[in-house]
Amino acid sequence: MPRDISRRALGARLTGLLILTGASAAMAASPVCAQNAASPTDLKAARDAPLFRTSFERAQKSIAPYLKTRPDVPAPKDAGGGYTHERHKDNYRIIREGGMLYAVTGDRAYLELVRDVLLAYADLYPKLSLHPVEAAPQKGRLFWQSLNDAVWLVEAIQGYAEVRDALPEKVRKRIDGDVFRGMCDFSMVHCAGTFERIHNHATWAVAGVGMTGYVLGEPTYVKAALQGLRGDGKTGFLRQLDELFSPDGYYTEGPYYQRYALSPFEIFAAFIDRHEPSRKIFEYRDGILIKAVYGLINLSYGGRFFPLNDAIVEKGIDSPELVQALAIVYGRNRDPQLLSVSTAQGSVAFSREGAVVAAAIAAGKSQPFVYASRLFRDGARGDEGALAVLRAGSGKRKQALVFKATAQGMGHGHFDRLSYIFYDSGSEVLTDYGAARFLNVEAKQGGRYLPENETWAKQTVCHNTLVVDGRSQFDAKVQVAQPAPTQFLGFAEKDGIQFASARLDKAWDGVTVWRAVMLYTPKGSNRPIVIDLVRARSTSAHRYDLPFHYRGVFLDSSTRFTPQSGTLKPMGRANGYQHLWEKAAADVPAGPQSLSWFLTGRFYTLHYDAPQVSKAYLTQLGANDPSDSLRPERAMILRADGQIDFNSACVLEAYGEYDSAEESARDTRTTIHNVRLFQSGHADLIRITGLDLQVTAIGIQWGDAAESRVTAEGRAWIWHGAFGIAA
Amino acid sequence: MPRDISRRALGARLTGLLILTGASAAMAASPVCAQNAASPTDLKAARDAPLFRTSFERAQKSIAPYLKTRPDVPAPKDAGGGYTHERHKDNYRIIREGGMLYAVTGDRAYLELVRDVLLAYADLYPKLSLHPVEAAPQKGRLFWQSLNDAVWLVEAIQGYAEVRDALPEKVRKRIDGDVFRGMCDFSMVHCAGTFERIHNHATWAVAGVGMTGYVLGEPTYVKAALQGLRGDGKTGFLRQLDELFSPDGYYTEGPYYQRYALSPFEIFAAFIDRHEPSRKIFEYRDGILIKAVYGLINLSYGGRFFPLNDAIVEKGIDSPELVQALAIVYGRNRDPQLLSVSTAQGSVAFSREGAVVAAAIAAGKSQPFVYASRLFRDGARGDEGALAVLRAGSGKRKQALVFKATAQGMGHGHFDRLSYIFYDSGSEVLTDYGAARFLNVEAKQGGRYLPENETWAKQTVCHNTLVVDGRSQFDAKVQVAQPAPTQFLGFAEKDGIQFASARLDKAWDGVTVWRAVMLYTPKGSNRPIVIDLVRARSTSAHRYDLPFHYRGVFLDSSTRFTPQSGTLKPMGRANGYQHLWEKAAADVPAGPQSLSWFLTGRFYTLHYDAPQVSKAYLTQLGANDPSDSLRPERAMILRADGQIDFNSACVLEAYGEYDSAEESARDTRTTIHNVRLFQSGHADLIRITGLDLQVTAIGIQWGDAAESRVTAEGRAWIWHGAFGIAA
Repeated sequence: MPRDISRRALGARLTGLLILTGASAAMAASPVCAQNAASPTDLKAARDAPLFRTSFERAQKSIAPYLKTRPDVPAPKDAGGGYTHERHKDNYRIIREGGMLYAVTGDRAYLELVRDVLLAYADLYPKLSLHPVEAAPQKGRLFWQSLNDAVWLVEAIQGYAEVRDALPEKVRKRIDGDVFRGMCDFSMVHCAGTFERIHNHATWAVAGVGMTGYVLGEPTYVKAALQGLRGDGKTGFLRQLDELFSPDGYYTEGPYYQRYALSPFEIFAAFIDRHEPSRKIFEYRDGILIKAVYGLINLSYGGRFFPLNDAIVEKGIDSPELVQALAIVYGRNRDPQLLSVSTAQGSVAFSREGAVVAAAIAAGKSQPFVYASRLFRDGARGDEGALAVLRAGSGKRKQALVFKATAQGMGHGHFDRLSYIFYDSGSEVLTDYGAARFLNVEAKQGGRYLPENETWAKQTVCHNTLVVDGRSQFDAKVQVAQPAPTQFLGFAEKDGIQFASARLDKAWDGVTVWRAVMLYTPKGSNRPIVIDLVRARSTSAHRYDLPFHYRGVFLDSSTRFTPQSGTLKPMGRANGYQHLWEKAAADVPAGPQSLSWFLTGRFYTLHYDAPQVSKAYLTQLGANDPSDSLRPERAMILRADGQIDFNSACVLEAYGEYDSAEESARDTRTTIHNVRLFQSGHADLIRITGLDLQVTAIGIQWGDAAESRVTAEGRAWIWHGAFGIAA
Repeated sequence: MPRDISRRALGARLTGLLILTGASAAMAASPVCAQNAASPTDLKAARDAPLFRTSFERAQKSIAPYLKTRPDVPAPKDAGGGYTHERHKDNYRIIREGGMLYAVTGDRAYLELVRDVLLAYADLYPKLSLHPVEAAPQKGRLFWQSLNDAVWLVEAIQGYAEVRDALPEKVRKRIDGDVFRGMCDFSMVHCAGTFERIHNHATWAVAGVGMTGYVLGEPTYVKAALQGLRGDGKTGFLRQLDELFSPDGYYTEGPYYQRYALSPFEIFAAFIDRHEPSRKIFEYRDGILIKAVYGLINLSYGGRFFPLNDAIVEKGIDSPELVQALAIVYGRNRDPQLLSVSTAQGSVAFSREGAVVAAAIAAGKSQPFVYASRLFRDGARGDEGALAVLRAGSGKRKQALVFKATAQGMGHGHFDRLSYIFYDSGSEVLTDYGAARFLNVEAKQGGRYLPENETWAKQTVCHNTLVVDGRSQFDAKVQVAQPAPTQFLGFAEKDGIQFASARLDKAWDGVTVWRAVMLYTPKGSNRPIVIDLVRARSTSAHRYDLPFHYRGVFLDSSTRFTPQSGTLKPMGRANGYQHLWEKAAADVPAGPQSLSWFLTGRFYTLHYDAPQVSKAYLTQLGANDPSDSLRPERAMILRADGQIDFNSACVLEAYGEYDSAEESARDTRTTIHNVRLFQSGHADLIRITGLDLQVTAIGIQWGDAAESRVTAEGRAWIWHGAFGIAA
């Protein structure tokens, strides 16, 4: 395995996946087991597996009331949230869970429930024209938008599949024709525009039709779903698999939306695999359906997804979509590492595959999931930048650094390229705000994105990345940003240094920004440190701001901050600055500086040397926030004013142990005396001096020199390649 | 059991413990078991109990390095935190744990370690005069203050007790004389002033001497420890037991310091009980030593102590002091409810009693601890006010309301009488800031109390209680506040209402304040609500502020808040107001009002009717905080200006369920339409109208009328007694 990075690679092309261990190895191989889902006998046995029993009993309890009443299948009338809307959503759940309950128990009451609900739809559906509410661009028949109709079909067909064989011919024909064929026709004919898109909404459409095709034995449906209405493969499921995920299983909108987009892919694939195992759908495109699930698991820390782009920060691996997808994948590859993820999820899917997972966990087959450093290239061909995940440490001291150098991520993307998040000891330490949204909280803009999502959360200053002239990348215009990928430079490991770097052009006229981030674990040490280099080059003078959004309580700094105690003013008027209160300001003299903070049991010191920086600010979020919606988070912003170039070298050290029960604090001082940046042409040298006066020097070569040399205070330092320990 | 409260009781005297269930019943009885600590055989058996094994192995691991080195017993030189200070602290731990390790394993290496360390002290101690550092009022010999010397003795004698019988006569004599007798003499003669105090520092002194008396067979030591140096019982341990806890086992400084004060009491008592069981020390003063431990457990929610007065908010039942004390009490009363508390603590004491606890847990004897509503009277005679703890709900929806109507609590007390904390669903919802201190965090004032502890945390406006004229109670002067107890009025339950009330005089000249708090669970409902009445009477005009420090995100209000977006200003210049940023202000019109917020999965609406209030403010903590130490917490403050009297009726409803994994929100609207206050003389009527227009009316009689009548909008409401549902 290559552990260095060639000059060529650094200069121009992606290095791809250099670190392949544990889980990722399993991904690539994805051996598909013949017996991939629970048989009826298995299902009854699995009822004794505690996790499946819980899911089973939850479904039983939620379906119980409907066993006593007549189906409620009203004529569509209401928009989202209204009575008929919620009713039809409940009904697809009743059909799906009712079908599974019949499969698990053999109790005909469930069979009859599913039958009666579907017969009520058979009465209603053929009479329906388009939904009366004028709102969505693509109307449905049951729902105000056709996406919901497609979801109805995907959910309901799963339940119908479990009962259809047990129904009399006549009933079966009625439901087949008046419900499912009617819906497929609607999707393929009336909603053909959606059906033929390369977009995750179209995935719901093709999944519903394709799954129905398998259940009803209608190969034309299957073909249309897999290869598009024209059958030429330019649209349809396989093309979506080609286009909607990167070769590494990354979905461009980021993990929060990856979780959502994943569902119809995995559910449909499970059906394909069950009915046409010879298609080896889980091996398609080098196992992309499996990679996407492992990718999503890997895009998390402490059970929560990295809050990139428009993300609800609480969202994590326990999302129902991932619970279901994990079971589908486990049904194929039997990777024991997935079982520990399932245990962390806290529940298993109430599905045939969920039963298999629960039984395997109960049989003690679980193994720890290995979260390793990973590169996720972005874009269908993997050439639109990348997300680099560097991990170090272990147990409660595990760390992760998430470096975002991806494409824009469409409308939900944030203008945050070259930013990074840093996790340590279970907490997000350098943070990403995620989305400004209180999902489903009616009083907060009806649960939709808040205005502050545009004015704050998406803006560049909201992230740990350079801001030029107080303006966001691409002036926060998605149509400008979308076609401009980030140039990912390198991802490699050498000398105990995990390294990732990227370059951003055109985010501002005439300014190019480079950044390299590293996790460095010195030999014999168990204390990794973050190393972070930012370099901007221009031909005219600019204001450069480098924010560090840190979580915790300010402790100390080398610069002397003057607090604004009389009154607080916002840091600016636009582009996110209007939301930041300026709490304190400091002059930053030349030379090495530091800032320390404290967060539940750990201490952090950011050492920095940024030659052009003359000012530092402490800010708190919350200005111009009329509905008091923003979290009062803290940041430090380093500012260089009227400078042509910008350079910074930062080292972040996490240390110490604070036990509030024992009232003990240990190891409460940084071991680093200072950090200095020295430059020569395209070469940067970071010299780290310990309290013990030991010096470590790390060099970066941004150009293509094979050997780099930088002189620092009379001593020459030399290294080879794109980065490495200098001697 | 009386369920009402007489007019007399409300007027003048404490009602005492009206609610006695589960744990509290166990307290009163405290049957002492004959076999109260693990015998040597038990000890070896207990090594298999997982919790004890963990404690044992931790001790083993921490002592292991010392088995290989010579004892390090340096001549005392350094102040707290310095080398010799930390060394002598380590040494007492080595002696205690080494002794226990010998008892558990029988391994002579531990015996020899304890012997050698003690012999080194025998060489050193007789030569010592007073500690060289000039700092503490009462110098020690090993340490800079005699309190540390006393702690050394309490800890070391426990270890010595485990090995003494196995040592040769000659060694024993040497250690007895040159270490322990010398230390006892120092404590009783040189430090007689401390020894004779009625103060928790003196408890350490008497405990060390008394325990040594038992181990060495020296009854004069025991007598001095129990009954004071003059032997007349006016000082000494028993007198301390009489004076330092209230009859309900409450320690006046509050739970954070109760935890600390408890240690020497329980440790010494365990020794007394072991050597003189006929003293029945655990039955002394109606079982005060047992009440103090149950009290401390009850003064918690979700495992954390109520953060009253100078409290570190993280501190909870897993504190080592309570771990040890719980084991001592379990050793006496074998209450299976204590075992579940021990499990929640996560570890057992490495002591004979800890072994008994672990074995009982392993044997499956544990039962859930019943946290019931409880009254804790304050003051040695229980006549200096009280802390009322009202609990309702169960499981994850459990609630607690903590009403503080105690005495001042000495130097660590806050000026917060008649304030309350409210917990719901695992979170503190209406909060108490606790202490402004980062314990042991060197960069924050060396880990000591911050200046903001005086300027913010102790001030009245920092708490959920009325502030008059922008000044704190008793002008924040402890010497004025200490002699003025709060007048506790009533604690009772009737009509589904749990009720507590109190009256505060003299906190401000010419102003008397009353407050009643209730947790009301309507019949057939599982949704308790908080009801809160404040009433102030004066003869001249004042400004009244009523703060609600709420945790969560602002959602909505009936009043229209105008945000201060341009600049933020502090709410005032002194008494805590200087730390509050005024974020928004609203005019409050006459009539019922409301404010809603949202906190991880739950919704809260505060309905209020406060006739004199004309303004409301939203504030955020953090102004005039040069070291950025204060947490940015939110509050709403209701203000009545230029008013002779103040009245408010509030109802706080908690509701809803938000599941971020499922992205579902249920039950997201308050069921209360509005709340109105009607008054007539000494009678207050709160009329609560539901969204269903059902009306509940609750009446309070502050005077002594047997029957109360209030007319509200043409309808008369009548109730009997101090409070109740009005009809």
